[in-house]
Amino acid sequence: MKIAIVMGSKSDLSIMEECSGILRQFGIPYEMRILSAHRTPEEVAAFSKNAREEGFSIIIAGAGMAAHLAGVISAYTTLPVIGVPLDASLQGMDALFSMVQMPPGVPVATMGVGKAGAKNAALLAVEILSLADDSLQARLEQYRQDMKNNVLDADESIKKL
Amino acid sequence: MKIAIVMGSKSDLSIMEECSGILRQFGIPYEMRILSAHRTPEEVAAFSKNAREEGFSIIIAGAGMAAHLAGVISAYTTLPVIGVPLDASLQGMDALFSMVQMPPGVPVATMGVGKAGAKNAALLAVEILSLADDSLQARLEQYRQDMKNNVLDADESIKKL
Amino acid sequence: MKIAIVMGSKSDLSIMEECSGILRQFGIPYEMRILSAHRTPEEVAAFSKNAREEGFSIIIAGAGMAAHLAGVISAYTTLPVIGVPLDASLQGMDALFSMVQMPPGVPVATMGVGKAGAKNAALLAVEILSLADDSLQARLEQYRQDMKNNVLDADESIKKL
Amino acid sequence: MKIAIVMGSKSDLSIMEECSGILRQFGIPYEMRILSAHRTPEEVAAFSKNAREEGFSIIIAGAGMAAHLAGVISAYTTLPVIGVPLDASLQGMDALFSMVQMPPGVPVATMGVGKAGAKNAALLAVEILSLADDSLQARLEQYRQDMKNNVLDADESIKKL
Amino acid sequence: MKIAIVMGSKSDLSIMEECSGILRQFGIPYEMRILSAHRTPEEVAAFSKNAREEGFSIIIAGAGMAAHLAGVISAYTTLPVIGVPLDASLQGMDALFSMVQMPPGVPVATMGVGKAGAKNAALLAVEILSLADDSLQARLEQYRQDMKNNVLDADESIKKL
Amino acid sequence: MKIAIVMGSKSDLSIMEECSGILRQFGIPYEMRILSAHRTPEEVAAFSKNAREEGFSIIIAGAGMAAHLAGVISAYTTLPVIGVPLDASLQGMDALFSMVQMPPGVPVATMGVGKAGAKNAALLAVEILSLADDSLQARLEQYRQDMKNNVLDADESIKKL
Amino acid sequence: MKIAIVMGSKSDLSIMEECSGILRQFGIPYEMRILSAHRTPEEVAAFSKNAREEGFSIIIAGAGMAAHLAGVISAYTTLPVIGVPLDASLQGMDALFSMVQMPPGVPVATMGVGKAGAKNAALLAVEILSLADDSLQARLEQYRQDMKNNVLDADESIKKL
Amino acid sequence: MKIAIVMGSKSDLSIMEECSGILRQFGIPYEMRILSAHRTPEEVAAFSKNAREEGFSIIIAGAGMAAHLAGVISAYTTLPVIGVPLDASLQGMDALFSMVQMPPGVPVATMGVGKAGAKNAALLAVEILSLADDSLQARLEQYRQDMKNNVLDADESIKKL
Repeated sequence: MKIAIVMGSKSDLSIMEECSGILRQFGIPYEMRILSAHRTPEEVAAFSKNAREEGFSIIIAGAGMAAHLAGVISAYTTLPVIGVPLDASLQGMDALFSMVQMPPGVPVATMGVGKAGAKNAALLAVEILSLADDSLQARLEQYRQDMKNNVLDADESIKKL
Repeated sequence: MKIAIVMGSKSDLSIMEECSGILRQFGIPYEMRILSAHRTPEEVAAFSKNAREEGFSIIIAGAGMAAHLAGVISAYTTLPVIGVPLDASLQGMDALFSMVQMPPGVPVATMGVGKAGAKNAALLAVEILSLADDSLQARLEQYRQDMKNNVLDADESIKKL
Repeated sequence: MKIAIVMGSKSDLSIMEECSGILRQFGIPYEMRILSAHRTPEEVAAFSKNAREEGFSIIIAGAGMAAHLAGVISAYTTLPVIGVPLDASLQGMDALFSMVQMPPGVPVATMGVGKAGAKNAALLAVEILSLADDSLQARLEQYRQDMKNNVLDADESIKKL
Repeated sequence: MKIAIVMGSKSDLSIMEECSGILRQFGIPYEMRILSAHRTPEEVAAFSKNAREEGFSIIIAGAGMAAHLAGVISAYTTLPVIGVPLDASLQGMDALFSMVQMPPGVPVATMGVGKAGAKNAALLAVEILSLADDSLQARLEQYRQDMKNNVLDADESIKKL
Repeated sequence: MKIAIVMGSKSDLSIMEECSGILRQFGIPYEMRILSAHRTPEEVAAFSKNAREEGFSIIIAGAGMAAHLAGVISAYTTLPVIGVPLDASLQGMDALFSMVQMPPGVPVATMGVGKAGAKNAALLAVEILSLADDSLQARLEQYRQDMKNNVLDADESIKKL
Repeated sequence: MKIAIVMGSKSDLSIMEECSGILRQFGIPYEMRILSAHRTPEEVAAFSKNAREEGFSIIIAGAGMAAHLAGVISAYTTLPVIGVPLDASLQGMDALFSMVQMPPGVPVATMGVGKAGAKNAALLAVEILSLADDSLQARLEQYRQDMKNNVLDADESIKKL
Repeated sequence: MKIAIVMGSKSDLSIMEECSGILRQFGIPYEMRILSAHRTPEEVAAFSKNAREEGFSIIIAGAGMAAHLAGVISAYTTLPVIGVPLDASLQGMDALFSMVQMPPGVPVATMGVGKAGAKNAALLAVEILSLADDSLQARLEQYRQDMKNNVLDADESIKKL
Repeated sequence: MKIAIVMGSKSDLSIMEECSGILRQFGIPYEMRILSAHRTPEEVAAFSKNAREEGFSIIIAGAGMAAHLAGVISAYTTLPVIGVPLDASLQGMDALFSMVQMPPGVPVATMGVGKAGAKNAALLAVEILSLADDSLQARLEQYRQDMKNNVLDADESIKKL
C-alpha cells in the first residue's frame, strides 16, 4: 500500500515535497524516486512494470516542459498514475498539455500546475486508499474539517476589520 | 462499489457514454446522473455528501464552459472525483482550466478534453478499483493487450503498403 | 442595501481592499467575508441563499485558480454577483475562464484580472445602486470628473515637457 | 426602467436576440439599437450620455473582434453596462479581452462568449432590476425553479436508461 | 507635419519616450498628450476630429489592458493611426488583441508590444513622412545603415571570441 | 504613387482581393504580386530594394503560418510596409505573432487577421496617401460617411422590429 | 540509409503520407511503422534502440494530443528524430508543446502542425542525407528551383489580372 | 564539417553559448556569427547561400520576437537549419510560432524555447554528424550514459532522504 513519488530531476524536489508532506501527515508509506522519461527510459519502464508487485498502489509523477514522465509510466502499468505538471517554462502550460491530453486507453489523473497540484496529488492518493481504509476516510474528513476551521477563523478575523 | 457518472446536461450524454461503455465492458456497476452545479446546486451537494454511503466509490463528472461540477462535488466528498472537461466553447480550454486548477485541499483528477478524456475517466476508475480486485487487474492487462494487438495489426498492415 | 465582498482566502485581501476602499469612498455599507467554495461549501451555500434577506443587494466575489466562488454563489441567489478573477496562477487566465464562461441561466458579472477588476467591481456595484439613489449617481459623476481632471492635469504637465 | 440592447452590426442580431427573448419573458421593456463604436462614434457618445435621462436603466452591448462598444459606452455613462463578447474571430478571445480587461474606473460587466453570454446578460439585467422590484425577484426564482425542474426531469429520464 | 504621441496615462511615458526619442533624432516635430479613451472620451473625440486641421499628420497611440485608445482615435479621424500595445497585464496580449483586431473600415497600424513597438511606431511614422520628404528618406537609409554597422561590429567582435 | 499588394501564394488571393477592391474604389493604382519570402527570397529582396524607385509608395503584404513576408520586405526598404496575417493555421495567431512582434528598427504596420485586416490594409494605405492628396481625404470622409449611413439605416430597421 | 516514418495510429496516415511522398520523390528508401508510445511502449523502445543497426538514419515521428512518441523514441536512440505534431485536439497546440519543449539532452527536431510539418519533416531528412550525398543536394536545389518556378508562374499569371 | 551558430544580436549570446559549449565538448568546430534577418538581410542571404561551400554542414539560428532568422537562412540554403526560439517577449511564444510554423518546402528543425532548446540544437547537430562519424556516435552514447548516471546518482541520494 505504498505510494511512489517520482520526479524527473532533483530540482523538482521542492515542489514534490508537498506530496510527501501530506502522505507523512496521513501516515502513508511512500518512496521518492528520481527517474527521467528521457534520460533513464529503461529505468522508468522497469520501475513501472514492477511497481504493482513491488507493493506500490499509486504512482505520483511530477515533471515539467514536455512532461512525458506520467504518461510513460502509465503506459507500463495499470496502477493509477497521478500527474503533476511543473512550471519549468511557459507557466507550466507545456507540462499540463503533455500530461492531461493523454490518448484514450492510458489515463493520467492530472492535477493543477505546481505546489497546489503536488499537494492535491497526495490528497487524491489518500482518497483512493480511503476506499479500503475507513480510518483514512476519517482522517480525510478531519483534514477537511481543519481546512474549514481555518477558513472560518479567517472569516471571523476579517469580520472584525 | 458503484461508479457515478454525473454530467451537467443531457447534451453531454454522447460524450459521457464513452465512460459507461468502458464500465459495462469491465462489468462495473454504475449510475448516470444529470446534475448541474449551477442549476441544481442543492441536489449536487446532497448527492455528493451521501455518495459514499450510497455505495459509490468514485464519481466521474463531465462538464463544459466554466465547469464547476467536478470541483463542487469534490468539495462535498472525500471520494475520488474524476473530471472530464467538455468542449462547449474555447475548444474546452475554459472547462479544462476550471477543473484542473483546483486549489490545494480539494483534488479533481482531470482527464483530457472530450471523448478521449471520458474514456480515460472510466479506465482510471477501473484502475482504482483494481487495487482491491485482482480480476479487474487481469481484465485491465487484457484491455491493454487488446489495444496493443490492434496497434501491432495496424503496424503489420502498413508495412505491407 | 449592503454589499458583500467575499473572497476565498485571507491572502486575497490585499487585492479585494480595492473594493472596500471604493465602497467606503461612496459611503456604502459593506461586509467582508472569507468563504471558500471548496473548503466551506455549506457556508457559501447558506450565505448565498440568505444574502438577500440578510439585507445584501450585491455580492462581489474574488477568487483565483479554478475560481468557482462567484459561480457557486450565483447558483444560490438571484442577487447580482460580480466576479473578480485573481492572478494566483497562469496570469489569472484560469480564474477568468472559470468565472466568465458561466453556462446560460446563472450569470456572473466578470471584471478584469486583479486590482483593476477589484476596483471596477465596487464601481459597478455603485452604478447598480445609483439606479435607485440619485445622490450616488451624483457622486459617480463627480468620481468620473475627478478621474478626468487627473488625466487633464497629467496632460498639462506632459505638454510642458 | 428600460433596457438598451446595443450591437455593432445587424449580423450580431441572431446572438443578441437571446437577450431580447429573456427580457420579453420577464416583461421588461427594451430597445434594440445598432450602434458602432468605430463607424458611428458620435451616435454612440450621444446615446450613452443621454441614456439615463432617456429612461434606460441598463445597457447591454454585444460586439466582436476589437470589441470597444461596451467600454466606449461605459466611458460616457454611469449606468451599469453589460458586455457580451461575440465570436467573430479567434473564438471570441479578442472580444473577451477587449471587454473584460477595462482599466480601473470604468467597469464593464462582462459575460461569456456568444449565446450563453447574451442570455446571461439579460438575466443579470433582470437581477439588477429585481433589487427594486419584488415581482421580478419572484419571477427570477421561478425561472431558476424551471431550470432546475428541467435538469431534474433530464436526471429522471437518464436514470431509466 | 507634426506627429501626436498620445498615451492613456502618465505611467506609459517611460515606454512611449522610445517614440519621442526617435522623432527627435529625425528632427520631426511632435506633441505628447495624455488622453484616455475611458476617462476623457470627449477630449479624445475632440482631439481626434481636429487633429488634421491642427496640423498633425500621424497619431501614435499607446495603451494597455482593454486598449481602446487607438481604435477610438481612428474612429474620429482619417489620419493614419499607429497603435502601440502596452504590457499592463496578460503580457500585453489583451492590449494587442484590442488594437490589432479592428473591424473593417477603421484601421489601426499595430506595432509589437512595449518598447520595441513604441520605437517602431515612430519609425513607421518617419517612413510615412519620407514619402514626401527625400531628406527623411536619406536619413532613414542612414539609420538602417547605422543599425547594420552595429550588427556588423558585433559580428566582428564575436568572431574573435 | 502606386501600391504593391504582395502575397505568398495564389491561394491568398481571395482574401487579398479585399485590398485591391478598396484601392480600385479609391482610384489608386496598384500592382498585385505573388512573391514568397521562403521560395523566392531573392525576388522578394530585389522587389523590395527597388520598390521605391519603381514608383511604389506603400507595400501591403499578406501571408500565413510563419509569415515572414512583410518583415523581410521591410528589411529591404524604408517604404511603409503593411502586414496582413492570414489564417492558414492556429487561427492566424502564428501569422499575427510573426508579423506584429518585429524587433526595433524595422516596423511592420500590422492589421487584423484575414479579410477585415486585408480591407483595413488598403484603407490605411489610402489614409497615408491622403496626407498629400486632399481629394483622397475627401473620399475617405465620404467612405466613413457611407459606413455610418449603413449603420444608421440598420439602426432604423432594427428599431422597427 | 533508410528513413523510418513512425506514427501512433493508422488514422495519422493521411497526414504522414506527405512524408513518404517526398521521400519517394527523392528516391530515398523508407519504412512506415505504426507504433504507439502509450499502447506499445516496449515495441517503441525496441524499435528505437535497434534503429541505427537496422540501417535507419533518421526517424520521423508523427503524433497528436499528448504526443510523446517522438520524445520517447529520442530517449532510446542517438539518431536524429524529427517530430510532426498532429492536430487531434486544441489545434495541435498540445502535440506541439509535447514535442518541442523537450528537456535538455534529448532533442526532437520539431516541425509545424499537420501536413506542412509532415512535408517539411521529409525535406529536412533529405537535407540531412544530402550532407553525404551530392546528388541529393542537387535534387534539393532542383526541388527549390521548381518551387520557385511555381511562384514565378503564379506571379506572372496574377500580374495579368 | 563546421557548424555555424548564428544569432540576431549580441544579447542572445548568453543563451546561445549553450550551443557552443556542447560543440566544444564534442570536439566539433564551429563559428559564431551575429547576423540579423532584419538589420543585415543581405549579409544573411550571402552567408546562407555560401554556407555549404564555406564548409558548413549545419546552421543553428537563435532569435526572439518575430524570429525570422532561421526561416530566412533556410530559404537560401539546403543545409539543415536548426532554430532556437528565444524568450524576448510573450515567453518566447512569438519566436516559437515564427520558427516552427514554416510553410511546406523550407523546413526549420525547431527546438524548445531558451537554454534547453539551445543545448538540444547542438546535440541534434551532433546526432546529424554522427551519421557519418562513428566516434561521434560513441561520444553521444557516452553523453547519454553520463546523463543517465547523474539521474541514477540523484535517485540514490533521494532514496536516502
